[in-house]
Amino acid sequence: MAAQTVASASTDSAFGPASALSCRECGERFPLEPLFACEACFGPLEVAYDLPSGDPETLRKRIESGPNNIWRYAPLLPVPADVASKPNLNPGFTKLVKADNLARELGVTGGLHIKDDSGNPTHSFKDRVVAIALEAARTFGLTTLSCSSTGNLAGAVGAAAARAGFRSCVFIPHDLEEGKVVMAAVYGGELVGIEGTYDDVNRFCSELIGDPIGEGWGFVNVNLRPYYGEGSKTLAYEICEQLGWRLPDNIVIPIASGSQLTKIDKGLRELIALGLVEEKPYRIYGAQAEGCSPVSTAFKAGHDVVRPQKPNTIAKSLAIGNPADGPYVLDIARRTGGAVEDVNDEQVVDAIKLLARTEGIFAETAGGVTVGVLRKLIETGQLDPAGETVVLNTGDGLKTLDAVAPTSRPTATIRPSLDAFRAAGLAG
Amino acid sequence: MAAQTVASASTDSAFGPASALSCRECGERFPLEPLFACEACFGPLEVAYDLPSGDPETLRKRIESGPNNIWRYAPLLPVPADVASKPNLNPGFTKLVKADNLARELGVTGGLHIKDDSGNPTHSFKDRVVAIALEAARTFGLTTLSCSSTGNLAGAVGAAAARAGFRSCVFIPHDLEEGKVVMAAVYGGELVGIEGTYDDVNRFCSELIGDPIGEGWGFVNVNLRPYYGEGSKTLAYEICEQLGWRLPDNIVIPIASGSQLTKIDKGLRELIALGLVEEKPYRIYGAQAEGCSPVSTAFKAGHDVVRPQKPNTIAKSLAIGNPADGPYVLDIARRTGGAVEDVNDEQVVDAIKLLARTEGIFAETAGGVTVGVLRKLIETGQLDPAGETVVLNTGDGLKTLDAVAPTSRPTATIRPSLDAFRAAGLAG
Repeated sequence: MAAQTVASASTDSAFGPASALSCRECGERFPLEPLFACEACFGPLEVAYDLPSGDPETLRKRIESGPNNIWRYAPLLPVPADVASKPNLNPGFTKLVKADNLARELGVTGGLHIKDDSGNPTHSFKDRVVAIALEAARTFGLTTLSCSSTGNLAGAVGAAAARAGFRSCVFIPHDLEEGKVVMAAVYGGELVGIEGTYDDVNRFCSELIGDPIGEGWGFVNVNLRPYYGEGSKTLAYEICEQLGWRLPDNIVIPIASGSQLTKIDKGLRELIALGLVEEKPYRIYGAQAEGCSPVSTAFKAGHDVVRPQKPNTIAKSLAIGNPADGPYVLDIARRTGGAVEDVNDEQVVDAIKLLARTEGIFAETAGGVTVGVLRKLIETGQLDPAGETVVLNTGDGLKTLDAVAPTSRPTATIRPSLDAFRAAGLAG
Repeated sequence: MAAQTVASASTDSAFGPASALSCRECGERFPLEPLFACEACFGPLEVAYDLPSGDPETLRKRIESGPNNIWRYAPLLPVPADVASKPNLNPGFTKLVKADNLARELGVTGGLHIKDDSGNPTHSFKDRVVAIALEAARTFGLTTLSCSSTGNLAGAVGAAAARAGFRSCVFIPHDLEEGKVVMAAVYGGELVGIEGTYDDVNRFCSELIGDPIGEGWGFVNVNLRPYYGEGSKTLAYEICEQLGWRLPDNIVIPIASGSQLTKIDKGLRELIALGLVEEKPYRIYGAQAEGCSPVSTAFKAGHDVVRPQKPNTIAKSLAIGNPADGPYVLDIARRTGGAVEDVNDEQVVDAIKLLARTEGIFAETAGGVTVGVLRKLIETGQLDPAGETVVLNTGDGLKTLDAVAPTSRPTATIRPSLDAFRAAGLAG
């Protein structure tokens, strides 16, 4: 593993409250380095913490007086205390939108909120995870920031690397949406199209990282993955803080690799453990597109293992056929009394337009998946509409225009005259 | 004027500190209604205020404890005190990004900041002006929200109307960028393409508003224009608050109609009058694209009048050939010791890519215009690089992909193998 040979500049304080990497399977602990797989059992590593003890009210006040971005939660993240002073895109603290119009349409009576991550710097939740990975790369003295990506991550890595002064080299499937390709390329780093699916891209990156070529490279979602994943915890923190330091009853989360869902659950449990929110039951729901629904399929079949699928859906940002965290997602959905559900592409488009027409939020296909799944969960009695519910929109509709373009056209095109306006039947 | 006949629900408090509409030419005062031209001299109307008196420190604290959007400035806007509780997109308080990398490239030594309005809900500054116009429409009992638009405004009106429960009917030139068309249509309102330029669209809307068809319609940039324009003041407020309640030395602002520039100047003068910032000289610079540079042309020629042009530029959001506020822009640039400058389309594209590569910000063509003009102002000695400078990015690169798409492509497309990677010369 070439990255391991890079001299580590880590000190206790460089990773804030983080104390070690620990294996999710066997519990073995490792130092805070660019590692991602347990040397004992090959299980995935995650960041372990000595979280702040003491009065929750003091911690809550410290957070509330912090910056309007994820660094307000620095005391709970593997970053140095002065992280906000370093060049970074400073994502997060996006809007939690009270969605009363959508709630009426769907029959949600307990309060419905959209956590709208299209407000991030490159307009997807990926800015959160990249921000943390980048700080780890800086600490480890890595000089190239890299990733495999279904599109959103490519833009997030390109942009963050540009601002922070890293070289970047990003790998994408060759058939991505135009907007995501241009956005990934515009920041001036290397952008490499791979002839294959996302899973092929991912495999190639694992190969690269084991080769001398990869020396000094930080692959945010490979050798920096334990740090990267922690960025998703901030979604849990923000949702609860924006609700007035309270847990919601239901959260609907999209599943690509499944990492985001597992880290949101981790974040919620931390808030409870720290006394920042009152403990109560919450249900976590996973959302997939039918054309790439390995986790949903396993959930419905009552399986513990996730059988890989070949993706075929317009929701390309969720098109991971072999989701690394799939089994953990199944555990969490079952433990919390939630579910994993899927919707087809037509339902995804309908849900994007429903959200736009009711709340003025133009979501990416992934947002169509979560809103569509919410509707289906209610219709099938799997989600209690009397509960307070949060739905994630993790990306921006401008990046997946193709999904809605055929049915989102001008009502009419006319000459600039009142007669033409009347003739078009638009005079009301 | 049909809209005048609509019953007004205005009360003293519905418009907060606003006291009247007043003519910018003759000073004649009118009640706070859906009026936009002086009945005496046909000059444009603007909102006049009885701004809060008393201790600036108290007002500053009140603002700082307000929401993270434009409603924190409700005491300085023509909106009711409880405006934040109404359904609105709640734009504003976007990032002011310290742009040290760009500063180095351009030789700015006094501090350079990007006011990045791509972070607004529909990713342009138009959300600010629409938010205020919508509140006025609500107060006036209007039921259709409308506009003429070069694209950004169309999306902003469509989204805001959807969330607030208004019907919308939006008019655009028929040849807009794909992204802007889809974004305007996705919110489910009427979208009408007009065979002509933006100026043709604008003329048509003025005709519509004088016709019975327009009864009950709020054209945000026609009969609601005085309210609408005030939204741009919030850019001035935010810039100064985010600098630590301080005026910058230089601000570079794009010019379409010129309204935004005049209102930013108005906002700065209000902050000085209220004692919220210390008075000192500041210079206001206007930025145009060469292919639509009527104000820049007049500035350079020393003229007071602006001769209309037929626009031909990739910066379509600035392509207003007959800018209503052009003469006021000339006044302000000359009074403050600033300038109005223009750059050609190639320079616009170069500047978009420069900003992306240095700061990770992907700007719309309008942002390419301001950054390109900043570079030109420095090179020609018109702007002192030792001054603290703020440059506006008013929109999002995802909406004008065509501008950079031809030169923002993958470095290579390869099979997923290390050999292919090496063969492509990417192994560094």
